[in-house]
Amino acid sequence: MEWVCTSCGFTRGLFEEYYWKCPRCGKPLSIRYSVRGEILSSRNTWERYRGFIPFMPEKTRGEGLTPIVAEKYSPHTLLFKLEYMNPGGSFKDRGSALAVYYGYKMGFEKTVVDTSGNTGISVALYSKLYGLESMIIMPRTAPLGKRKAVSRIGGKVVEAEDRLAASSIVEKYISDGDVYYVAHLWNPLYIIGHATMVYEVYEEYGVPDYVFAPVGSGGLILALAYGFEKLLEQGLTKKLPRLIGVQGYSCQPVYEVLHGKRIEGEDSSLADGIMVYNPPRVKEIAEKIDRSHGEVVLVGNSEIQSSLEELWQNGFLVEPTSATVYAAYKKIKNEIPGDATILLVLTGSGLKTL
Amino acid sequence: MEWVCTSCGFTRGLFEEYYWKCPRCGKPLSIRYSVRGEILSSRNTWERYRGFIPFMPEKTRGEGLTPIVAEKYSPHTLLFKLEYMNPGGSFKDRGSALAVYYGYKMGFEKTVVDTSGNTGISVALYSKLYGLESMIIMPRTAPLGKRKAVSRIGGKVVEAEDRLAASSIVEKYISDGDVYYVAHLWNPLYIIGHATMVYEVYEEYGVPDYVFAPVGSGGLILALAYGFEKLLEQGLTKKLPRLIGVQGYSCQPVYEVLHGKRIEGEDSSLADGIMVYNPPRVKEIAEKIDRSHGEVVLVGNSEIQSSLEELWQNGFLVEPTSATVYAAYKKIKNEIPGDATILLVLTGSGLKTL
Repeated sequence: MEWVCTSCGFTRGLFEEYYWKCPRCGKPLSIRYSVRGEILSSRNTWERYRGFIPFMPEKTRGEGLTPIVAEKYSPHTLLFKLEYMNPGGSFKDRGSALAVYYGYKMGFEKTVVDTSGNTGISVALYSKLYGLESMIIMPRTAPLGKRKAVSRIGGKVVEAEDRLAASSIVEKYISDGDVYYVAHLWNPLYIIGHATMVYEVYEEYGVPDYVFAPVGSGGLILALAYGFEKLLEQGLTKKLPRLIGVQGYSCQPVYEVLHGKRIEGEDSSLADGIMVYNPPRVKEIAEKIDRSHGEVVLVGNSEIQSSLEELWQNGFLVEPTSATVYAAYKKIKNEIPGDATILLVLTGSGLKTL
Repeated sequence: MEWVCTSCGFTRGLFEEYYWKCPRCGKPLSIRYSVRGEILSSRNTWERYRGFIPFMPEKTRGEGLTPIVAEKYSPHTLLFKLEYMNPGGSFKDRGSALAVYYGYKMGFEKTVVDTSGNTGISVALYSKLYGLESMIIMPRTAPLGKRKAVSRIGGKVVEAEDRLAASSIVEKYISDGDVYYVAHLWNPLYIIGHATMVYEVYEEYGVPDYVFAPVGSGGLILALAYGFEKLLEQGLTKKLPRLIGVQGYSCQPVYEVLHGKRIEGEDSSLADGIMVYNPPRVKEIAEKIDRSHGEVVLVGNSEIQSSLEELWQNGFLVEPTSATVYAAYKKIKNEIPGDATILLVLTGSGLKTL
């Protein structure tokens, strides 16, 4: 079980030392591990997926194993993966359950993370669970409900002017000393943790033809790619889905890398969860999407708003960022074959936004 | 499959006509049905419990199959049932999924319900799903977040001065014509639906020794009694748990019936979900608790508030009403044998209250 830098070849034992990025070349790290096995059908916990994750956290708050709702949206079958029904209200809990536990095992007593919101709730929650102090650096523009949630859980909210200012506050904390920078944009445990949703989809519905996911840091879409590749590796499937990444017109770094240009369009700031201007894994994201014969679809506020209303009135109580995938689906559905099975990941709870 | 009045013996086919109470004697009705079977282990849906419910609704939004978190709270093992991780943010979705579907099958085009909040979100959600108009009568004191949620789902919020005024508004709607009074305090489909949580607990952990649940209308505690009795009937268990109903000092009708007196104590209005002064099934509730060798435990605002904070900081993001069960557990834990397994039902999401 070890850290691996796929850029420069650096390796080191996972529990020897913690790095939030490659100490040699500064690129994001991966984790190599050799457990494998079948999906276990026992209790409704991650015990089922022991063969797919490097270690089991000691504690759980019911993360993962979220419902999947299948609906006919003529002519397609849509599978809605209800990630907003996680304990902290978003899919981030999957990654945090592993990543924060790892920091605890490594002996850290404090965690720090910079986030637009959902990761903050999640990191605060799992930090507190293991008795760690957490400092959550959030931009002023983060929704009030998310900031309140962090405080009530017992995390310390540190307000930053914007995401860039947040990064420099993080650097100060790191240079000050013994703090675990959870670094969800970098930390491969987020990718490995989020990927558990793929095994759940596989168990109930097999491998879909298309997968729609919002792309901010890209942790989610990379996790989807990772999970389906794991199924392929272990001989459980022969096909991989097309990955459709969804970004807003206001912040389209993956689109730019993929197509070498921008498309101007409406403001998309309603989708606050995906306003990440410099995702560190941007090239990897564009490559995974490209190799899957996928695409990046861009959406704007009016599409997000109308999709959000439609989802609420259809019983999916999500936040605006989650609505981007439904907006994107409607935008390109005529280009998708009629017999396709399509997975839409609904990432975050709208109950926080009331 | 039929309506049964256990008070006067009235019976009628379930799909012949809808009654919200016995048309002959005015008491709450039961439903008799003969399906039975083993728990199926296939998809993560209620298909598993087909042998325990009279019919399967056509649509789902992922209600039920919520996580169970087991923790050692020396000396006891506590099982937290995370009912706040339901699609509308509370356990009420279990009952509404059945009850609203039934109204739809009976040809109604409008639903009406009087509620402090969670039932309103839930009834609005499932009504919209089947294309029914919903009118949700809520007291002014209902939390703003809950009222907003109903509107965003597409339900019509009708404001009442208090719960009593709400009842008379309901009566007006009913006398005006063809409207389905969902009547969660009366409707046995809420009891049958909520009872599915018992089969989930049974599948993962067997039958616990104690069960703590908040008691407002009493639908939840009756459902727990009902579910465990079903397991007994079908030969799946020989023991029944002690039922501990939790009420607030400000509103203790079940305690009064059970003990023939009140206990004065601190205001308990923080637990808005259990301020039901005249639960129509109050005698039945007291009987079930008594026969289980259980008890009613009363709590007040300061206990609720400190339990709420403790739960949030322990990763359970619940609303104040849910915290009553943890407050009650702490209050009587010294009277519980050390080897007991204890189920605490955490009923509603705190994300709505930010």
